Amino acid sequence: MELWYTENHTDNVKFSIKVKEHIYSKKSPFQQIDIFETYEFGKLLTIDGLVMVTEKDEFVYHEMISHVPMAVNPNIQNVLVIGGGDGGSVRELTRYKNIKKIDMVEIDEVVVRSCEQYIPQTACKLNDERVSLYFEDGIKFVEDKENEYDLIIVDSTDPVGPGEGLFTIEFYRNCYRALTKNGILINQHESPYYERDSKEMKRAHRKIKNVFEVSKVYQFHIPTYPSGHWLFGFASKGIDPIKGLDANKWNALGLKTKYYNTDIHVGSFALPTFVKEMLEDETV
Amino acid sequence: MELWYTENHTDNVKFSIKVKEHIYSKKSPFQQIDIFETYEFGKLLTIDGLVMVTEKDEFVYHEMISHVPMAVNPNIQNVLVIGGGDGGSVRELTRYKNIKKIDMVEIDEVVVRSCEQYIPQTACKLNDERVSLYFEDGIKFVEDKENEYDLIIVDSTDPVGPGEGLFTIEFYRNCYRALTKNGILINQHESPYYERDSKEMKRAHRKIKNVFEVSKVYQFHIPTYPSGHWLFGFASKGIDPIKGLDANKWNALGLKTKYYNTDIHVGSFALPTFVKEMLEDETV
Repeated sequence: MELWYTENHTDNVKFSIKVKEHIYSKKSPFQQIDIFETYEFGKLLTIDGLVMVTEKDEFVYHEMISHVPMAVNPNIQNVLVIGGGDGGSVRELTRYKNIKKIDMVEIDEVVVRSCEQYIPQTACKLNDERVSLYFEDGIKFVEDKENEYDLIIVDSTDPVGPGEGLFTIEFYRNCYRALTKNGILINQHESPYYERDSKEMKRAHRKIKNVFEVSKVYQFHIPTYPSGHWLFGFASKGIDPIKGLDANKWNALGLKTKYYNTDIHVGSFALPTFVKEMLEDETV
Repeated sequence: MELWYTENHTDNVKFSIKVKEHIYSKKSPFQQIDIFETYEFGKLLTIDGLVMVTEKDEFVYHEMISHVPMAVNPNIQNVLVIGGGDGGSVRELTRYKNIKKIDMVEIDEVVVRSCEQYIPQTACKLNDERVSLYFEDGIKFVEDKENEYDLIIVDSTDPVGPGEGLFTIEFYRNCYRALTKNGILINQHESPYYERDSKEMKRAHRKIKNVFEVSKVYQFHIPTYPSGHWLFGFASKGIDPIKGLDANKWNALGLKTKYYNTDIHVGSFALPTFVKEMLEDETV
């Protein structure tokens, strides 16, 4: 008997991963959480039947979500991570000695506890003394924050279910207020390839553009996400992700990475023409 | 009844595309050729059960294989395309008025004729008066050529079956001799993600590095290829793909593209650290 995990990327496209063992399955108050041991990708975390993290390629996502802002502003001290229950973003952030405080606000404690137990590759630094875990709604959490964080990372699921409120203009406004003058917002920005994903991407981008002075998008290759072509948003009150990069300074830190480097930092902001056109589309 | 085309990306990963109609199927002397009408990707050409071209994303592949060298050397006049039976590379090349001659050497006439009939989106410019079609073995074709082409594009299948000889050092040496002083070789360079593909990529790269003075690699997002993370090689006798780029000159041509632009030209040569390390690996 063969066991396969299959994700529908659209109604007409399926991606299937051969499973050694279905290790964990739980319905939390928010969502369905499953962990599989797979042949090709190591451990696989899915939420509501969608790939969130695999051990083989999580480094791409977590390095690109954290090192890009940190290389632009190495003076970042206070960080807020919204979502990111697998712990991978926090793992990368804790590598920076400069960072004094990381608040991680994850609505679903079950995600964190299951990853701590079964995917320590990502959930290995949640006990760092600078990290405070809040099992709360990130949307509410930022409502009363002001001038408090140098970096907010929205490491969310897609804009359905608990993730939906993380793609609203009210939320982006609250993030703006919660950020310091040199603050940076990084958010999961969906994909430009399949229609459903690209619609969400266009909507999210239009809203962020209305709130932040600087609003850019960068891309990366993550093969286990639909199409493998994924985007993060970079927004700030003035800092530019390219002009603000001090490559020598970041390289002097000596951090060993597998995907991120200061060349791909710059290169990832160069977008295909069809993506640029989508981001400029004001009709959505 | 539902019809699905499934490709095994590895023994443990499958990619499936819902099919409206299986339009064409033929075993040529070289390989098995099939064309499907699909819901998500339009027409789909497969060879020996592997995705070669889909109408939805062929523009990525064909723009990146042709415009990168053309933007580096706008004086290119004589071009050799090896493989490329779907016609997409030739379609992009014929947009350059400067080009005087395009020799396309495709071993399998059945690929060309089936694409002319069923995928005119790519095979629409093979009757351009500058194009000469040779249904021959590209490996033999370049053996006696000397100082003849400004650009050679190796638009090949993977290094199995008829494509195998296009990944040998003898072939790269013959290309070198066939190229003019400012000549450029672009070749299909496989993917860094799955082990089988990345092994081929490392091998091919090591050989090209031994033959050409300049040997670089650039990447692009093509969702219907395994992992969606694909590479082309850029090799020359001295011209550098970044320093040699005259962005203003290319932009002045006014060519409308969907993926390529002069920013992504530069950005695509910035590679993830794990890819750079693979390309430097001398043990393969």
